[in-house]
Amino acid sequence: MDIKGFTFSAVEAAVKKPGRLDLALIYSEVPAQVAAVFTTNAVKAAPVLLDEERVKRGTSRGLVVNSGNANACTGARGMSDAKETTALVAAGLGIGPEELLVSSTGVIGVPLPMERIRSAIPALVGTLGKSTLADVASAIMTTDTFPKLQSRAGVAGGVPYTVAGVAKGAGMIMPNMATMLAFIVTDAAVEPALLQQLFRDAVDCSFNSITVDGDTSTNDTALLLANGAAGNPVITAGSGDAAAFAAILNEVLLELAKQIVRDGEGATKFVAITVRGAASDADAKKAAMAVANSSLVKTAFFGQDANWGRIFAAVGYSGAKVEQLKAELFFDDVQMVRNGLFTGGDAEARGTEVLRKKDFTVTVDLHLGDGISTVYTSDLSYDYVKINADYRT
Amino acid sequence: MDIKGFTFSAVEAAVKKPGRLDLALIYSEVPAQVAAVFTTNAVKAAPVLLDEERVKRGTSRGLVVNSGNANACTGARGMSDAKETTALVAAGLGIGPEELLVSSTGVIGVPLPMERIRSAIPALVGTLGKSTLADVASAIMTTDTFPKLQSRAGVAGGVPYTVAGVAKGAGMIMPNMATMLAFIVTDAAVEPALLQQLFRDAVDCSFNSITVDGDTSTNDTALLLANGAAGNPVITAGSGDAAAFAAILNEVLLELAKQIVRDGEGATKFVAITVRGAASDADAKKAAMAVANSSLVKTAFFGQDANWGRIFAAVGYSGAKVEQLKAELFFDDVQMVRNGLFTGGDAEARGTEVLRKKDFTVTVDLHLGDGISTVYTSDLSYDYVKINADYRT
Repeated sequence: MDIKGFTFSAVEAAVKKPGRLDLALIYSEVPAQVAAVFTTNAVKAAPVLLDEERVKRGTSRGLVVNSGNANACTGARGMSDAKETTALVAAGLGIGPEELLVSSTGVIGVPLPMERIRSAIPALVGTLGKSTLADVASAIMTTDTFPKLQSRAGVAGGVPYTVAGVAKGAGMIMPNMATMLAFIVTDAAVEPALLQQLFRDAVDCSFNSITVDGDTSTNDTALLLANGAAGNPVITAGSGDAAAFAAILNEVLLELAKQIVRDGEGATKFVAITVRGAASDADAKKAAMAVANSSLVKTAFFGQDANWGRIFAAVGYSGAKVEQLKAELFFDDVQMVRNGLFTGGDAEARGTEVLRKKDFTVTVDLHLGDGISTVYTSDLSYDYVKINADYRT
Repeated sequence: MDIKGFTFSAVEAAVKKPGRLDLALIYSEVPAQVAAVFTTNAVKAAPVLLDEERVKRGTSRGLVVNSGNANACTGARGMSDAKETTALVAAGLGIGPEELLVSSTGVIGVPLPMERIRSAIPALVGTLGKSTLADVASAIMTTDTFPKLQSRAGVAGGVPYTVAGVAKGAGMIMPNMATMLAFIVTDAAVEPALLQQLFRDAVDCSFNSITVDGDTSTNDTALLLANGAAGNPVITAGSGDAAAFAAILNEVLLELAKQIVRDGEGATKFVAITVRGAASDADAKKAAMAVANSSLVKTAFFGQDANWGRIFAAVGYSGAKVEQLKAELFFDDVQMVRNGLFTGGDAEARGTEVLRKKDFTVTVDLHLGDGISTVYTSDLSYDYVKINADYRT
């Protein structure tokens, strides 16, 4: 995996505890176009507030990120710490602090241990280029059980380019351990307005289409840096190269999003929930999200119980338009409900077989229109409760 | 507890299995004013659809209710079964079938065992007056671990009257085992329009202010029958008697609602969440509900973890207006957050002490206005997962 013009480093700063990589740097040798999507939570962590300002510049040289501490609910000191972190790293790199973005994930309400971060920054800058994007993926983990990394190659105007990314999740977000983070880098040259649009669309179909527990954190951030170092002719809207780039970007983000769900806290199942035949795409997404977030549905998945009634009820309260006697429901290709009624026969036994698998699909067809949406979710297990009940102890 | 002009019966129909009361009748000797609130779920069970029609008459002679089967997602047959049930009971009572309401709670998507219900109806009608409202409370239980019953006495124009009610819950609702049901009877005479208004208000502050898992069932029903048999001068809007009646009605409903939360599936905690100082009451309720429904918050309650960050984050994504640096947060009277920041000192230790209690309060003050709302919830425990994962096995 070669992403031209990007270098990486990852070091141990012992932000929360020693013994692991927890401070990382993504650096672009030239200013990169930046696209970003931040948490919609009204309570935003200091690095999110700072980045929201800095991405307005349109370009960035990179990102410094720590795990172990979210720098959230830390007030004026939190903002000052975020600024100082970028200033120290930028000074080491010989760039302006405003050219650097910053992210944090971890415990909430506790100030960053700045003395340890200050001490680690010379090594972070000094080892730049000695680490890989995979090391960055490791450094941003919190309760994640595996690093999340994905890359795809493409060609534009005959010139090869790469799109690669890392992510962390675990809970859909954990306000305490905090956050869904995703950082994508590409050496492709892309028209700025097109890049923004494609990134927003890709986030909608990936990170905004997964849910582990329905909570939204103070730190959620998805960033894309495109530095054009591949040397391809700039990809412009409406071109075949734009369509190809969009497909590659979508693939990378969707794969990272799926990895987050698979690593959902305590997850034993990976379930793709599709609602089709809805009155609109928005209705389909509302209904799919209601199913994906229902604790009753998710405990039934954990219990391997082909409990279509709970899914039906969640669709019913989602706010989507529903005509009960038109709806169909499938587990994989086993039809459980036709015209709003249980199909009977061996459906219960065959549906239960599907639920015993680790990966399966739920499809609801509302037969009202062309609206369709797919959402990815996990089950709700004893371990989810254990991880979240015992987390700080 | 004497509610004039009402009689009750409860028998064993073996709807799901033998060995318990599961078919009950509430009967008023004279037509009673009826007020009703039904599920907002777009998927409604047959008895809900039938009752929605019948309450339009404005009066009713009573209600027949079964547990063990929700008669939901049962199509035309479900509606025909609901009608037949009321027709058979009404014939036994010598009243018109349209004068009788019907409720069902239990498994979804399975037709009612009508042969067993038909067989039990003569005993149901024949033993009318031999059972108490407490027997009705037992007969409507599903996964409830105790019957829910409450009554209060009042006086209007010097004449005593009673308001009494029963409820069932367990999950906030379980689309499979199904439903929050509440049936309230009073012998007070109340102006019809006033009765409707007071009942809607009381439901809003009670059954619509509790949550166990955030799901809304296909069968949720709250009914009030007021038959005037106490002989009081009719209670009219704006009077002192109306205010007193409203207070009593609110007390009965709120107490039943709290019993439902205490009996929430797997609940080990009872938590009253108040959001005050919100921009509006609606904002306060949105924020309190987001906290009460957050799986992360509820697992922290179970873990006795004074994790104010998760509560703060839930308020943040609730959609309510929030200015982070104004907010305060308390566990009972222990202040954890001031001006959006952790208060420090011994707050962590004292907050943890509060969380160790079985009953405690969470108060968030947004310092933005006069909006206030209190919502009641339970924790999310291993047993919630166990009960809901293993339910049908």
